[in-house]
Amino acid sequence: MARTIGSHGPTTMEAIRKAGLRLIFEHGYEAMSLRQLAAEVGIQPGSLYNHINTKQELLSDLIQDHINDLLRELEEALRDKQTPVERLRAFVAFHVSYHMTRKREVFIANSELRSLEPRNYEAVVALRGAYERRLADILSDGMSDGVFDVVDLQVATFAIIALLTGLCSWYRPGGRLTKEAIIAAHEKLVLSGVMPQGASPGGGHPGQGTRE
Amino acid sequence: MARTIGSHGPTTMEAIRKAGLRLIFEHGYEAMSLRQLAAEVGIQPGSLYNHINTKQELLSDLIQDHINDLLRELEEALRDKQTPVERLRAFVAFHVSYHMTRKREVFIANSELRSLEPRNYEAVVALRGAYERRLADILSDGMSDGVFDVVDLQVATFAIIALLTGLCSWYRPGGRLTKEAIIAAHEKLVLSGVMPQGASPGGGHPGQGTRE
Repeated sequence: MARTIGSHGPTTMEAIRKAGLRLIFEHGYEAMSLRQLAAEVGIQPGSLYNHINTKQELLSDLIQDHINDLLRELEEALRDKQTPVERLRAFVAFHVSYHMTRKREVFIANSELRSLEPRNYEAVVALRGAYERRLADILSDGMSDGVFDVVDLQVATFAIIALLTGLCSWYRPGGRLTKEAIIAAHEKLVLSGVMPQGASPGGGHPGQGTRE
Repeated sequence: MARTIGSHGPTTMEAIRKAGLRLIFEHGYEAMSLRQLAAEVGIQPGSLYNHINTKQELLSDLIQDHINDLLRELEEALRDKQTPVERLRAFVAFHVSYHMTRKREVFIANSELRSLEPRNYEAVVALRGAYERRLADILSDGMSDGVFDVVDLQVATFAIIALLTGLCSWYRPGGRLTKEAIIAAHEKLVLSGVMPQGASPGGGHPGQGTRE
């Protein structure tokens, strides 16, 4: 993304990104005008072009930077975690913690895929795919080791990410539960969810009859 | 919602709802103009008011009708299901099947809560709460019976609904998996996820140390 060299360049750019994030979150990308964005930042509409080329570029950068951050910080969270169980726990704790702080980015990354031009859409889908593959690899390793059992690797990957991302729709800082308690609640669901069901009460493997 | 008595009233109303659903899904509520909606339906803008009072009313009706359908059909799906395990399986199969057919409604119900006026927002949140309570009751009954074990009932309820609704972001009819296989994959994750973890490989109850 273009940045001016002047002393207030990065600061103004940061203000534009923040304002853009908020306006897209509240009104939708298509409803946000650059005039509105400039007013929100407190600059003249024409001055926006010292910082961004197009509204599309702003949206694409907001989403791509979000997923790039996610990928980079996930690497950090998985470092030194060896077994599939340890790695899955670390994935859950990381994803939940991170999403507690990025509600707007997550919302936009999901709801405004529709507004990305083809080239940007493909770039975002590729980045998202890279993140999903990290989880799929953990699940796949656990299945090879016999510690995990999922019916379909791809469905399980998508479903677990959806489960963990769901907290963006209800989480508010300072609520009833501590961050640790929220992580623990998600960990139990996900870790149990992928365990073999040898000892399940109430009957055999659910859905086994329809398994492909 | 107001309907005209003329012979084409219901048909036009249905066309307005369909066009509104599609336009809001593709562009966002705020970006959709009533002029655009009328053009999409093939009527004069002024004629819209024979069928709807406001754009807000259309949005609110689309979302409320969706959740009312969901609630009514869930009752049907749970009828005759007795044990918590049977009821949870029925909930999963119903929610997944239903959401395969209502991708646009689900997207709008999640992304355009922001656009609902306070009275409509409260009505939608109450309906959604009623749906969530059906699942929370099943989980709670299973915990009383000792067949389910979740760390936090509310987090588990939200997380399971998010897990199941996630398929709206990737499901396409005619894909790799049959409907039955997709249901089975979700069933395994959810049913295992809420089971007590007595026989878990790789150690004790994850996150037990941080349980509230």
